[in-house]
Amino acid sequence: MASDFEATRRLFHLPDGVIYLDGNSLGPMPVAARARVDSCVADEWGEMLITGWNKAGWMEMPARLGDRIGRLIGAAPGSVVLGDTLSIKVYQALASALELRPDRKVILSDTGNFPSDLYIADGLVRSLGGGRELRTVAPEAVEAAIGPDLAVLMLTEVDYRTGRKHDMARLIAKAHAAGALVVWDLAHSAGAVEVDLAGADTDFAVGCSYKYLNSGPGGPAFIYVAPRLQSQVRPALSGWLGHEAPFAFDLDYRPGQGIERMRVGTPPVIQMAALDASLDIWDMVTMADVRARSIELTEAFIRGVEAACPALTLASPRDPAQRGSQVSFRHKEGYAIMQALIAKGVIGDFRAPDILRFGFTPLYTTMADVTGAVRVLKEIMDGALWDREEYRRRARVT
Amino acid sequence: MASDFEATRRLFHLPDGVIYLDGNSLGPMPVAARARVDSCVADEWGEMLITGWNKAGWMEMPARLGDRIGRLIGAAPGSVVLGDTLSIKVYQALASALELRPDRKVILSDTGNFPSDLYIADGLVRSLGGGRELRTVAPEAVEAAIGPDLAVLMLTEVDYRTGRKHDMARLIAKAHAAGALVVWDLAHSAGAVEVDLAGADTDFAVGCSYKYLNSGPGGPAFIYVAPRLQSQVRPALSGWLGHEAPFAFDLDYRPGQGIERMRVGTPPVIQMAALDASLDIWDMVTMADVRARSIELTEAFIRGVEAACPALTLASPRDPAQRGSQVSFRHKEGYAIMQALIAKGVIGDFRAPDILRFGFTPLYTTMADVTGAVRVLKEIMDGALWDREEYRRRARVT
Repeated sequence: MASDFEATRRLFHLPDGVIYLDGNSLGPMPVAARARVDSCVADEWGEMLITGWNKAGWMEMPARLGDRIGRLIGAAPGSVVLGDTLSIKVYQALASALELRPDRKVILSDTGNFPSDLYIADGLVRSLGGGRELRTVAPEAVEAAIGPDLAVLMLTEVDYRTGRKHDMARLIAKAHAAGALVVWDLAHSAGAVEVDLAGADTDFAVGCSYKYLNSGPGGPAFIYVAPRLQSQVRPALSGWLGHEAPFAFDLDYRPGQGIERMRVGTPPVIQMAALDASLDIWDMVTMADVRARSIELTEAFIRGVEAACPALTLASPRDPAQRGSQVSFRHKEGYAIMQALIAKGVIGDFRAPDILRFGFTPLYTTMADVTGAVRVLKEIMDGALWDREEYRRRARVT
Repeated sequence: MASDFEATRRLFHLPDGVIYLDGNSLGPMPVAARARVDSCVADEWGEMLITGWNKAGWMEMPARLGDRIGRLIGAAPGSVVLGDTLSIKVYQALASALELRPDRKVILSDTGNFPSDLYIADGLVRSLGGGRELRTVAPEAVEAAIGPDLAVLMLTEVDYRTGRKHDMARLIAKAHAAGALVVWDLAHSAGAVEVDLAGADTDFAVGCSYKYLNSGPGGPAFIYVAPRLQSQVRPALSGWLGHEAPFAFDLDYRPGQGIERMRVGTPPVIQMAALDASLDIWDMVTMADVRARSIELTEAFIRGVEAACPALTLASPRDPAQRGSQVSFRHKEGYAIMQALIAKGVIGDFRAPDILRFGFTPLYTTMADVTGAVRVLKEIMDGALWDREEYRRRARVT
């Protein structure tokens, strides 16, 4: 099929006068999500009450929606399940991977990883003790640091600040050759770039649904476990919905079949209803088309900003093949500049210490958004509008 | 204030022709929840986009709603926070408690505990190793099993099957005298019975919001940490929103202030909106009134069923002081009987192997519901309606 991005844009609610370039932080509302959520609340919860778990299919949603996301990341049906938050899923994946490599002690990650992943890993190795260690190197030093002592390589594919993109397939092959397992965080990959989890022989992956996948604030995370590993994994957070027979209420834990064992507690049904509506839009496109369009948009933005705003320094890789679906620029007054942009209806975000971050999401970002954002950014930079008291004040209080 | 339960009932949507006695599994929809959720989706997510985290107060919801629940369980402001699922919160509480008693190895629980709590504890001691042990005794043997080797006493106050209620204050005093810490699961207590966490000197407590607190399917859990312990706790699941400065994106974890450190990942905003609406109803009542009314309802139900249905055996304690807000009866054909009840509009639930479970929730359960449920149950038992093919078939497939 040919993806029709004019059609998909009409399926999102975007407030008047706003150019939204922060869908890599929180995606906008699919128009249909509103009615879908309302129906989940009123028709399902309201009318079916407890019977909704069966009648409305709530119990199967984590696996059903997992498969829908699976299509976007190269995962076979039955290898992705929803639940919890990304941090919890990182913990599960990492703890499960460590247990599959009991004789090795080292988790390797990089300083470009999202800090929460590092916090979770650090907490895990401290709890487990036994000489386990989280080793963190610069992103460009990861490949050389893969050695025979490595238990798990844990990386985020796309750097949340700069958009720098790791070569997943290459690093997975290197890690596997060293006898290690891999855990990939796809927070800025799922729905943003082409991911081929099965093709790259990935062991574990995790991601969130509220960024490019547009599930709304606090939508659940997902976890992928390679089919070849599923039966070997003993889930670290062994909750009742990951049990082989949750409603037998046995006193002993027996892991469920396949990916189901990575479930923990009661899933967030109302949040999942919003995601379900969003995934209907994703069904209209291919990731190859999304990626191609994303590159057109980011290339145009970089060209535009570099021509119009020489005071801003590109923080993202110039080669689109090494970049995710965002573009970042540095400026020492980045926070105040972003406040001024937001005040003029161009919403990106700021990441300390000096990064202005802009996400490009082909489902609803147009070339007109790109040129509009460049024009407003030029106005602000030319007039040093960010230096006005109102933005400096905002910058101080945050 | 005097609690007006006729007024509170009008604030819930209950389908026509239904007597709902399963609010201890999933509470019904507060009428206002529908509009509140819709506003969260359309006015907040839809219009504010990423700025909702500040403008709509999403970021503060876990602590703000935690305080609202705190009032119902005897917890001071700043000692309860929402997030994740109950299983995850059990893990956090238990792991944190174990770390505060590094020289002790035993977690004590009972066979009446909800199995997921035992699965989580079992998974934790297996991960940690070091001779740690989950010891499980019969509920009535707990007090005698508390000894000087005990690290943590982990119990659910109200048994999910029978409604049998532990004497929290007494067991806490005994555990503390032995030098142990306590973790209480309030899944069937919060909004059901009077709980005085601070008065009983509880260390940790956890609970869920979708039962008596009516937050809807998959609503978030909560965790309580005694103020005297908060600064000593190193959270086991150290996620970014439990960090002292989440948006500094430091590479090293520093636990946040007070109860905030028990947060992990991005909270489920849409689910919390439903809970917020429900808590408005809870603000209209006192737990003393709720408890008194609950006892009236459960006593009337027991009297009615015992007079009308001699084939059913009471599984709950007869003394209301030793019982939560549910009543359970045993029958070997319990599953088919419950199917017949549900088909006639009386919704309770079944818990293997032979328990018919009925929850009484004064916010919306009336004395007419009690007499109506008894009448239908008598019809079914007198006519052996549960022996009809349709119910036997349903019983086989589940």
